[in-house]
Amino acid sequence: MPLNNDAAIRISAFSWLPPFAQGVARDIRVRWALEEAGLGYRTRLVDPRQPKPEDYLAEQPFGQVPSYCDPDGTMFESGAIVLHIASKCPTLLPEELQARKRATIWVFAALNTIEPAIFPLVELELSHAAASWAAERRPALRERAALRLAVLDKTLGDKEWLEDRFTAGDLMMVHVLRFLRPTGLLEGYPRLVAYKARGEARPAFKRALADHLSDLSAGAS
Amino acid sequence: MPLNNDAAIRISAFSWLPPFAQGVARDIRVRWALEEAGLGYRTRLVDPRQPKPEDYLAEQPFGQVPSYCDPDGTMFESGAIVLHIASKCPTLLPEELQARKRATIWVFAALNTIEPAIFPLVELELSHAAASWAAERRPALRERAALRLAVLDKTLGDKEWLEDRFTAGDLMMVHVLRFLRPTGLLEGYPRLVAYKARGEARPAFKRALADHLSDLSAGAS
Repeated sequence: MPLNNDAAIRISAFSWLPPFAQGVARDIRVRWALEEAGLGYRTRLVDPRQPKPEDYLAEQPFGQVPSYCDPDGTMFESGAIVLHIASKCPTLLPEELQARKRATIWVFAALNTIEPAIFPLVELELSHAAASWAAERRPALRERAALRLAVLDKTLGDKEWLEDRFTAGDLMMVHVLRFLRPTGLLEGYPRLVAYKARGEARPAFKRALADHLSDLSAGAS
Repeated sequence: MPLNNDAAIRISAFSWLPPFAQGVARDIRVRWALEEAGLGYRTRLVDPRQPKPEDYLAEQPFGQVPSYCDPDGTMFESGAIVLHIASKCPTLLPEELQARKRATIWVFAALNTIEPAIFPLVELELSHAAASWAAERRPALRERAALRLAVLDKTLGDKEWLEDRFTAGDLMMVHVLRFLRPTGLLEGYPRLVAYKARGEARPAFKRALADHLSDLSAGAS
């Protein structure tokens, strides 16, 4: 579904990002979910280098992206938005109750078990690699991240997706695994590398990523 | 609702915790939700000092607590479990659609915006306060946590709860704010201190905390 300036759904995204954040910012989660659901949307671009406009803070108090608006109201938090979109899209959230619960578990596991275990390491490598504290702290952060990835790898096993088919849980997990690029850690888990690649090969992901990058180019002018 | 060995719902909790984790472990979130919903439950106690039994890893692959079982199946991730319980309890999740969405937003904000911004600081103070890297890293971690708390404080304002009444979003946020104890940061925000105290004054929270501590005493024997 291409971006559509008349769409009823509007999300926010940053108009500029430093190179390391291009292609991984959290608006991609919501774009991807909307693409899987076949829902058109338009974007409100926000410049992260400027103070956030008051009317933006009214819809996203923390000033992050994405926010989400449709005729029913405004939302923030990519996890809540993706679950909301998923509730209208059986591709993302199966109708059978137990399968729905499993998909929801993986959304939270991505955001509250995997992301917190890897983000401090990602941040260290991106922004503090040469700081004197980094050399001291890096081994423990790598060990923690590796421990979680090893469990995820074992749980995925030789399956294509975390459960018996693609769900919102895979969408969120694949997005979170993309953060790992500056750490080189994922390469130790070939099954997770292939899993992430399967997610990124979905046409909906490709469109989401292309539109994310295209909005950044527009914002650069 | 007291613990009930015949209950259909079973959650897991640790049988032992170091002093700093007593009263803040994540099983409390689920106990609290069950108490708000008036649902009885029993506990499976897991010793974090021992290798996790295989049948426990089958229900919680990361070996964390809590897991949750009812006759419909097994779950993990406290966020997913609390939303599942909340879906059957209007006290936790209002029936009106927009109010439901707002409650869900705050569950995710607690877990994916506030918790990741405070946890590295909490961990530093609890486990690494004297490490040489801690002195160098502390100011930036305090600044990040304070930035998020300032927004939360402003968003709460003089309201009693984050929306117009208590929801699962407040349950999760109050639990996350409890992590801050070793940092002394919360005391800079008297409205957040009072908000946390309002949550902790709920009878359901008090029962959840008492049973969490009681399971730890039983495990100590």
